[in-house]
Amino acid sequence: MPYVNIKVTQEGGLNGVGPSAEEKAQLIAGVTDLLSRVLHKNPATTFVVIDEVPLENWGMDARQVSTIRAEQS
Amino acid sequence: MPYVNIKVTQEGGLNGVGPSAEEKAQLIAGVTDLLSRVLHKNPATTFVVIDEVPLENWGMDARQVSTIRAEQS
Amino acid sequence: MPYVNIKVTQEGGLNGVGPSAEEKAQLIAGVTDLLSRVLHKNPATTFVVIDEVPLENWGMDARQVSTIRAEQS
Amino acid sequence: MPYVNIKVTQEGGLNGVGPSAEEKAQLIAGVTDLLSRVLHKNPATTFVVIDEVPLENWGMDARQVSTIRAEQS
Amino acid sequence: MPYVNIKVTQEGGLNGVGPSAEEKAQLIAGVTDLLSRVLHKNPATTFVVIDEVPLENWGMDARQVSTIRAEQS
Amino acid sequence: MPYVNIKVTQEGGLNGVGPSAEEKAQLIAGVTDLLSRVLHKNPATTFVVIDEVPLENWGMDARQVSTIRAEQS
Repeated sequence: MPYVNIKVTQEGGLNGVGPSAEEKAQLIAGVTDLLSRVLHKNPATTFVVIDEVPLENWGMDARQVSTIRAEQS
Repeated sequence: MPYVNIKVTQEGGLNGVGPSAEEKAQLIAGVTDLLSRVLHKNPATTFVVIDEVPLENWGMDARQVSTIRAEQS
Repeated sequence: MPYVNIKVTQEGGLNGVGPSAEEKAQLIAGVTDLLSRVLHKNPATTFVVIDEVPLENWGMDARQVSTIRAEQS
Repeated sequence: MPYVNIKVTQEGGLNGVGPSAEEKAQLIAGVTDLLSRVLHKNPATTFVVIDEVPLENWGMDARQVSTIRAEQS
Repeated sequence: MPYVNIKVTQEGGLNGVGPSAEEKAQLIAGVTDLLSRVLHKNPATTFVVIDEVPLENWGMDARQVSTIRAEQS
Repeated sequence: MPYVNIKVTQEGGLNGVGPSAEEKAQLIAGVTDLLSRVLHKNPATTFVVIDEVPLENWGMDARQVSTIRAEQS
């Protein structure tokens, strides 16, 4: 009965949104399969929750990702 | 000083939204009362945070809940 | 398919340990029942995870709970 | 490589929104600096994620913060 | 810069302990690879934290996993 | 009423343990002060929880930190 929480920045999709529904489906299928293969966990009771975090709310290297992205572009 | 985080799928309410304000009030009162009764925790310093997760972002049985719900309907 | 995380300080039990197995069973049964009553969630897919946090690792009012407890005793 | 999650109620900003981009930048810089000073953690691999929680979804003292704020005003 | 938290029950290993170091290495490599393939995330800034939860502290179906396991054996 | 969770690897202290009680006290005081200064949050209802994660359970760059540290030494 694993519980997995995946946090990613809300970017990469069209129009500045986060991952597509199809990409999220791949993450959920992939991590459930991984837990089944490595630890023999039952997929029926494996939960995966994806959080998409606004760039302004994620910090790395003491700065917001929104600032890092603006410098990169 | 307990901290409780309740994660539910964003569904069940009118127009496809999540739990109503009244239902969330009941969850908060109920879990605070539970911690007071079982562990004698002080309600004044019991925090409860409710997260409503989009169906597309919650996986179970290797699939998105949005897919599971579409199959059920 | 709710996921609930309950964090409490590791105290209150015998010999400075946290809640007893029986108390944890009551928390799990109580919160699962609450979600079933208020939001009609299925107990079979309701997960509850209890974290017991050492007093030294929990802060409130800018101080460790271990310090607060020492002042209270 | 610390990971810090800061949860605050979504209030205090203009028009009922949460902290400003500038305030979030200060939180990120401040907590990264704190971990660098106290534990010598590398800022380049220090992550900070800020969650802004709707007042209706945060409970304290067995009530929603939205209710507490209405009583205070 | 994703952050992934994997929570599993502390079981399955020798002598009642949790996953082995080798199994944890496989989970970390696998989920990092998944995020790289699906979302093109940089492995260097992908964090994975594994929490092993005592059976007594994990509830499902309104009961502790320790109770469920005792019934199964 | 902020809630802050700080996760660090369990290292840096004497004999392979994590941060000292004094260092944890500094983290708690520092982050509470930061939230008071930037967002005018009340220290009395600011919670800080520190999690110390075994090196074997923390992954970065697709490897366990225990492996990274062994390569560095």
